[in-house]
Amino acid sequence: MKNFSFQVPTKIIFGKNTVKEIGKEAKLYGKKVLVIYGQGSIKRNNVYNIAIESLKKAGLEITEFSGVKSNPVISHVRAGIILARKSKVDFLIGIGGGSVIDETKAIAAGILHNGDVWDFFSGKSIVKKAMPVLDVLTIAATGSEMNAYSVITNEETRRKNGFISSYFYPKVSILDPTTTYSVPSNYTAYSSVDAICHLLEGYFTHKDNWAPIQDRYVEGLVKTIIEATELILKNPQSYKGRSTMMWAATLAWNGLSVAGVGKTTSPNHMLEHSLSAFYDIAHGAGLSIVLPAWMTYESIKENSKFVQFAENVFGIKTSDKNKTAADGIKAFKDWCQKIKSPVSFSEANLPITELEDLAENALETAKLWGIKGYVKKDIIDIYKLCL
Amino acid sequence: MKNFSFQVPTKIIFGKNTVKEIGKEAKLYGKKVLVIYGQGSIKRNNVYNIAIESLKKAGLEITEFSGVKSNPVISHVRAGIILARKSKVDFLIGIGGGSVIDETKAIAAGILHNGDVWDFFSGKSIVKKAMPVLDVLTIAATGSEMNAYSVITNEETRRKNGFISSYFYPKVSILDPTTTYSVPSNYTAYSSVDAICHLLEGYFTHKDNWAPIQDRYVEGLVKTIIEATELILKNPQSYKGRSTMMWAATLAWNGLSVAGVGKTTSPNHMLEHSLSAFYDIAHGAGLSIVLPAWMTYESIKENSKFVQFAENVFGIKTSDKNKTAADGIKAFKDWCQKIKSPVSFSEANLPITELEDLAENALETAKLWGIKGYVKKDIIDIYKLCL
Repeated sequence: MKNFSFQVPTKIIFGKNTVKEIGKEAKLYGKKVLVIYGQGSIKRNNVYNIAIESLKKAGLEITEFSGVKSNPVISHVRAGIILARKSKVDFLIGIGGGSVIDETKAIAAGILHNGDVWDFFSGKSIVKKAMPVLDVLTIAATGSEMNAYSVITNEETRRKNGFISSYFYPKVSILDPTTTYSVPSNYTAYSSVDAICHLLEGYFTHKDNWAPIQDRYVEGLVKTIIEATELILKNPQSYKGRSTMMWAATLAWNGLSVAGVGKTTSPNHMLEHSLSAFYDIAHGAGLSIVLPAWMTYESIKENSKFVQFAENVFGIKTSDKNKTAADGIKAFKDWCQKIKSPVSFSEANLPITELEDLAENALETAKLWGIKGYVKKDIIDIYKLCL
Repeated sequence: MKNFSFQVPTKIIFGKNTVKEIGKEAKLYGKKVLVIYGQGSIKRNNVYNIAIESLKKAGLEITEFSGVKSNPVISHVRAGIILARKSKVDFLIGIGGGSVIDETKAIAAGILHNGDVWDFFSGKSIVKKAMPVLDVLTIAATGSEMNAYSVITNEETRRKNGFISSYFYPKVSILDPTTTYSVPSNYTAYSSVDAICHLLEGYFTHKDNWAPIQDRYVEGLVKTIIEATELILKNPQSYKGRSTMMWAATLAWNGLSVAGVGKTTSPNHMLEHSLSAFYDIAHGAGLSIVLPAWMTYESIKENSKFVQFAENVFGIKTSDKNKTAADGIKAFKDWCQKIKSPVSFSEANLPITELEDLAENALETAKLWGIKGYVKKDIIDIYKLCL
């Protein structure tokens, strides 16, 4: 194993009827709170009412900021910072999925920053302080509820960038699986692929030739997410499925899967961020397109880890390593199609006219994230496998 | 899944040459520190020198308290509290294995308690505050470095009791696998069984009929600990083996294996604590005796989970469920014998004359811990399987 440091201080409150606990937790962080949410789904499924009532009962003074979109944008973050400063809030609560939590984190850091909040995402500044963030999670996918990441899109420059800071760990995350009952089947499928991709980025890119703790952790969670997704798609109100999916997605990207394996990279997120930045495609749907293509491309260079994946996740065993690796990738791609997550640009109705620009955008991400080994031609070749 | 709350704030610093980081971390917690250690093995393997030098460099004023024994005793805890108060320390650092860390936690709470520190362990008081605890781990086994437990033995009353408190999470734990190179093969074996037992307590006692996240987590770690132990016994300086064992043992008992599965109990710890309290046997060696016996006893009542264990951990598959379950337990018992961890009272040279007293002692633990379903005869029957 390689040296590492691990500390995830977030308090997780998980289970049925836990949304109403937000007030009790929140009042430890101040008097005035900015409550941030998205396009209003939390009003339709009653999460909004329960949370606001709990916060009012706890005596908190609430300012609301809504309209966060999937692939949250920097202009909206800036508007949130202005409102938060004007309202003199002490802390923030995001109610929603990963986009809402990511934006809440960005606002929490931006409030205390002398300069434009995009500075963090462009690599110009690092976060030196942030207001406390709490959240009520309503979509199981990104893991933002228990990690230090925030990903924001700059609509003007067509850049979707991420930033990592220990200040971004939420203080408290409330995970009530019943809040995800109303997530439609397409977003459920995209979310599953997102969580699986979080696990596989590290799994396929670490160079440790013996990492049984981390590899088994990943393989176990990938199998579990596949099973839970199928339960949910059969019955969207399967508590078994929704609860298992929710905790698995959190565990998929909280740092445990990569602690000790040394350097890992996120090439699939690199490739996907450009798709989201250009076409505003749902993140999980974008990953579902690039992941099988990237796996195919990489397995041609070196396939031992893809053989392990095929054997341990899909139970595939043939006498031919190349065939085993290819069968494993195909099994995963078939599964994405089975759950109706797109595996090509055409299935997602994306135009195919900007491969060069896309590749340049992805290369810029590669530079920012320190991902080596890809020149423009490689990236175009992978994108071509997505056609 | 069942509702749960999860928060493990401990900062883990893992890897080669990390002991020297203790000073930098420690100085955040005060000026005066009580450094607690055991019988002197840390002087022989140089960990003491590196840690003390680092603490001095950081400008800390050090008081030392040594002599912690395996199965740490309350009289020594009391002596530590007196010294800590006299020295007016701000915080504590344990350097050693689980026994040292457990005693450090007990002293940290006892200093601030108006009354006898045994009150916590007898169930008379709960911990309401404690001084910060940091540690440098030198034996991979108990998981105390990333959990909220402390287990102390009262030599007078022959009680080995545990206490759990969120104040007992260490602030910082430094895990340098090379510090465990000098752990002898017998203690290495006991430690492996200890860590496996931590995983299996929850696995075999939870009642969730579908817990793929937690069950796969446990099965993966048990297989990993078995593999790592064999690497270490072949070569005590196998960094691969020692590092994998160290992180696996930490993950085995930090709450993740049972988060979400509902109520679990620790019947094997219940049975073992009496052995340690009566005969001062190494904890892992005691567990190695009772665990196969307990598994045999329980599998006769209901064997489905033992079938799963046999199949998923040892790859056993027969057409007869009873045979599969029995073969799995036998495979585990055989493995304990292979690594020379005792599986019977006679192998550990324990007397067999006090079964009644042992059973009564264990029943008292059952009462304290809320373990139901065992009367005296059951416990005697399980102990008889250990003869």
